[in-house]
Amino acid sequence: MGDTRTIAIDGMGGDFAPQAVVDGLATFARERPGTRFILFGDAAALKVLLDQHPDVRERTEIRHCERAVAMDDKPAQAVRQGRGTSMWDAIQAVKAEEAVAAVSAGNTGALMAMSKLILRMVPGAHRPALVGSWPTANGVSAVLDLGADIAADPGQLIEFAIMGVAFAHAVHHKPDPVVGLLNIGSEDLKGHEAIREAARLMRRSNLGFRFHGFVEGNDISAGTVDVVVTDGFTGNIALKTAEGAARMISDVLRAELNSSIASRLGALVAMPALKRMRERLDPRRVNGAVFLGLNGVVVKSHGGADGLGISRAISVAADMGDSRYRSELETNLSHLARIMETQAPEPQSEEAAK
Amino acid sequence: MGDTRTIAIDGMGGDFAPQAVVDGLATFARERPGTRFILFGDAAALKVLLDQHPDVRERTEIRHCERAVAMDDKPAQAVRQGRGTSMWDAIQAVKAEEAVAAVSAGNTGALMAMSKLILRMVPGAHRPALVGSWPTANGVSAVLDLGADIAADPGQLIEFAIMGVAFAHAVHHKPDPVVGLLNIGSEDLKGHEAIREAARLMRRSNLGFRFHGFVEGNDISAGTVDVVVTDGFTGNIALKTAEGAARMISDVLRAELNSSIASRLGALVAMPALKRMRERLDPRRVNGAVFLGLNGVVVKSHGGADGLGISRAISVAADMGDSRYRSELETNLSHLARIMETQAPEPQSEEAAK
Repeated sequence: MGDTRTIAIDGMGGDFAPQAVVDGLATFARERPGTRFILFGDAAALKVLLDQHPDVRERTEIRHCERAVAMDDKPAQAVRQGRGTSMWDAIQAVKAEEAVAAVSAGNTGALMAMSKLILRMVPGAHRPALVGSWPTANGVSAVLDLGADIAADPGQLIEFAIMGVAFAHAVHHKPDPVVGLLNIGSEDLKGHEAIREAARLMRRSNLGFRFHGFVEGNDISAGTVDVVVTDGFTGNIALKTAEGAARMISDVLRAELNSSIASRLGALVAMPALKRMRERLDPRRVNGAVFLGLNGVVVKSHGGADGLGISRAISVAADMGDSRYRSELETNLSHLARIMETQAPEPQSEEAAK
Repeated sequence: MGDTRTIAIDGMGGDFAPQAVVDGLATFARERPGTRFILFGDAAALKVLLDQHPDVRERTEIRHCERAVAMDDKPAQAVRQGRGTSMWDAIQAVKAEEAVAAVSAGNTGALMAMSKLILRMVPGAHRPALVGSWPTANGVSAVLDLGADIAADPGQLIEFAIMGVAFAHAVHHKPDPVVGLLNIGSEDLKGHEAIREAARLMRRSNLGFRFHGFVEGNDISAGTVDVVVTDGFTGNIALKTAEGAARMISDVLRAELNSSIASRLGALVAMPALKRMRERLDPRRVNGAVFLGLNGVVVKSHGGADGLGISRAISVAADMGDSRYRSELETNLSHLARIMETQAPEPQSEEAAK
């Protein structure tokens, strides 16, 4: 791996664009000197910001775009009027193979819809899934779908598992990730039929990954498995519920530590420990969700990310771009298609046997 | 309210029964001197434990049961063989109107199945829901269904809202609770059809409570609404995911504060603040989930609860027993039934108009 690659970046996406985007680009560029960038957006504004980072300037090509997608644009509207926006052009650069991946902190729905339209699905994948990195007691896990779609049938859940394993290989550098299906109990009798059927298929077939079985909500943060598979409705609720609980706890901690002179003093003495805790739990560290299943890599940064957060999302794009993700996905999805054919419902098998 | 009531308690339910149950009974009994108890289980064992609390002894009637439901019994089996267990007899005491509510820290599935069988549904309610108290930034919210069933149609989601409001009146003492529907976005176009239809109905009809609209996962801990309504699959995943995240964060905090002499010293100085934080976030404080929609109140304590946790669950039972919960539920459910009739699909309305 020669550490050379080009990444396309939507310079206008996110709450703090373009400043945070350029800061993130510069931070990442210094960590990985072999990377080149194509930065899409308002050329004049981007040039002023980029000129503050002369060491990065020469590795970055600015391409002017007249327009940008607003954070509150409706996805359908954003797609119809998408041509010429910084988001559209960044994805288009992946399609044209000018860049190995695109990164945007912009409107999630618009990014998803544009990515599907421009890049199309990988052969064998039926729906994209949004995967994210979740901090756990022993490191990090991949959780998907975080909200690309609201439902998933058994075959799609297995596709998500295959995609999540490829992501865990590429971004978490785990050689042999273990997959779990999110459910409300560990017994086979519980949960929706789609989940139970997916579990039966994963137990019965060799799909090229280790299947743990069902996991419950508390297993996500415990790090019981490396890849947590669920439908996009449940995954989105789980992610936002955990974020909300974490914010509440850290607010209570801050308020109580500020509540008296003694506790402020104690917090001061324990500051290095509290700082390490904050760093371990810092959501910016795991920023960068990926739309999986497309003919090309698109990374979604949190809209509120600052420069550090954006740099992590770019790092996810680089890891995905460097990996065997695409060929792994195609191989395993075509293997899955063959397995699903032999698992066809009884009447069809009888027909075929005649 | 004369503060006199009788509560039926399953003495043998939970990981630390009967010790934790009797401890919890005694703690609660001292807080609310007007309460009487019927304690079901192994009379000899219960008597020994209760004799340590002579002030409570005279207000507690022990009724011997030969058997107890095991924590890992299958619900169907537990129900078939349920007669004569401490769990069954505690619920039966509510049915016989000897007690205003039953409390058990035992097997959730068995408790649910037995409660449905013995108490039956309130007229107008189609399915029970498990409601729990969720600590929030500004107090506490009610969340349901936490897993009584895996799905819910629009009418059932509205029934859950009515039940949750009655619970918030009775246990959280909120005069005018606001209801939100858990979804993956605040726009009307997102989420499952059942949720969107329930929202339409709640917006259109006056159901006797304030409807906020959709809330997202992070709104639960933020306390955006007083009552969060969702299906049992999603609610269970949300609850356990938040519990897992909270445990992970508190483990990281503890580990970092123990990681050096300086940080231990700081933690010592800040101890009163850290202790207040732990108390505010102590899950025992909000212990006690209720099966709503039945002809009688059954409170489920966390299986791992200690005496303090059990005392909180008994307190929920007392609050429910003292409240107008049952009559409020019947009134509002029959009002809902009239509204649902007028909301019948178009073809039927046309028929009726002829």
